[in-house]
Amino acid sequence: MSLLAVGSVAFDDLATPAGSREGLLGGSATYFTLSASLFTETQLVAVVGTDFSPDHRAVFEGRPIDLAGLEQKPGRSFRWKGSYGDELNEATTLDTQLNVFAHFHPLLPETFKQSPYLFLGNIEPSLQLDVVHQMAEQPRWVALDTMNYWIRGSRKELAEVLKEVDILLVNETEVRELTLEHNLLKAYRRVLSFGPKVLVIKRGEYGAVLMTEGCVFSAPAYPLEDIVDPTGAGDTFAGGFLGKLAQLGRMDLPALKHAVLTGTVMASFTVEQFGTGRLETVQKKDLDDRAKAFSDMIRLDDL
Amino acid sequence: MSLLAVGSVAFDDLATPAGSREGLLGGSATYFTLSASLFTETQLVAVVGTDFSPDHRAVFEGRPIDLAGLEQKPGRSFRWKGSYGDELNEATTLDTQLNVFAHFHPLLPETFKQSPYLFLGNIEPSLQLDVVHQMAEQPRWVALDTMNYWIRGSRKELAEVLKEVDILLVNETEVRELTLEHNLLKAYRRVLSFGPKVLVIKRGEYGAVLMTEGCVFSAPAYPLEDIVDPTGAGDTFAGGFLGKLAQLGRMDLPALKHAVLTGTVMASFTVEQFGTGRLETVQKKDLDDRAKAFSDMIRLDDL
Repeated sequence: MSLLAVGSVAFDDLATPAGSREGLLGGSATYFTLSASLFTETQLVAVVGTDFSPDHRAVFEGRPIDLAGLEQKPGRSFRWKGSYGDELNEATTLDTQLNVFAHFHPLLPETFKQSPYLFLGNIEPSLQLDVVHQMAEQPRWVALDTMNYWIRGSRKELAEVLKEVDILLVNETEVRELTLEHNLLKAYRRVLSFGPKVLVIKRGEYGAVLMTEGCVFSAPAYPLEDIVDPTGAGDTFAGGFLGKLAQLGRMDLPALKHAVLTGTVMASFTVEQFGTGRLETVQKKDLDDRAKAFSDMIRLDDL
Repeated sequence: MSLLAVGSVAFDDLATPAGSREGLLGGSATYFTLSASLFTETQLVAVVGTDFSPDHRAVFEGRPIDLAGLEQKPGRSFRWKGSYGDELNEATTLDTQLNVFAHFHPLLPETFKQSPYLFLGNIEPSLQLDVVHQMAEQPRWVALDTMNYWIRGSRKELAEVLKEVDILLVNETEVRELTLEHNLLKAYRRVLSFGPKVLVIKRGEYGAVLMTEGCVFSAPAYPLEDIVDPTGAGDTFAGGFLGKLAQLGRMDLPALKHAVLTGTVMASFTVEQFGTGRLETVQKKDLDDRAKAFSDMIRLDDL
């Protein structure tokens, strides 16, 4: 069952304590689909420029990622330049060039309009709503990511699209800014009143919290000794989380918890190399081994 | 089996978003022993002034807390004044008056010197070492808490006492300052080289991480909608954690994990009221109910 993802494909210039790289394939939808495609068929809707070469396309090909919605336009692709300090927990943006992404208007191919699962990546809320309206059928679930820029500048439009959303995936500062509540349980109650039933809060090195009616599940990040590049960790988490949910075809609590585990483990691979380097080479066995280690790690054994 | 705790008994003036209170009974050893005494016999070594009244003493009495090591001296008790902002995660110290605590030199009553379990609360490292030397027998385990003030100013003395320590309980910034490693897995390897085999990192609203050879266990904080006063949460955690370990008489991984759960749940009670208000009234049933809810919360159910 297909998972349709709308978002950005970009090129990143990155500097981390481990080194620096230029022109790496990045963007939220790139990390998302590479991660989700380990679990389910995915459909990508994004825009790139003429600098997106056949080699870049080849990164997606050979995986269950349908590129019919990847539009190529004259001009350059979205470019982002960022750096990380020793703590690795927050990027400093040095430069953002929207380029062809500035006029991105997602247009769904006919074959995408029946997808049962829809992920609205972090783009302008009015465009996210427009994508929902292009669907021929109501998806089984709709998930959404957003950021402080839209929460501040497009609150009304964001409120409109949130009414259509089942699963909200944001980070801790975003959920606080969106709900104006510092306490996460109170924030969840506000989110419920906006529309979504499931809230997933990404906390970087502190892992993730899942909130559903009557239940909270909190999972740490997978502990690693060497983190090379945190870029894309949150989008990889989202791809693993939603890809696993789509694969399971369920949204009950055990499924949601396992999806958190999957997202967590996938994110732990991404940060081990620059860009999508590690994510491109992850095998099912790597995933299974780390998922086993992770579930042992959080398990409270009988005394 | 007795757990001997050395630390401070103090009076606190507190301001939090929920209100303010003056002259509350506080101090690390107060929270620690009130928490630990739910699980095991405890012995308290601390110093107070003449402002420590029979009413204050009554808070400890009627519990398995042996006060033979609570010295009363002319002068005032240790006083601390602090405030918390809306985020509640860090106190701003407004005033510290060491008073009788400035000349605290812990002297163990004879009946305390055979205790199998020893907790060295956050006092000057040379005094912590002196306490170790006063023991008639090597305890089954020695646990230690410290703070950045001693890590910076008494690193050599701290290194001496750490050689005698099995379990180090500190917060995240402290372990990073102590080991000069930001990454927690690397920090744990440094801690191992100092002496302790078990490292427990207190992370406030993000819970706690337990590290032992070959194992990492990470538990979130217990989610609460209303936090009144975070003072003493870390000491309450330590009391619950070590009290449970002493009760179990084991230090294997399942025991350590359950001890983390116990510490976490105990800390969640403390923050629900000012000072020791809630901690003084916790019943075994409250604890069991919350421990059950917590273990459900972190459990990864079968799919």
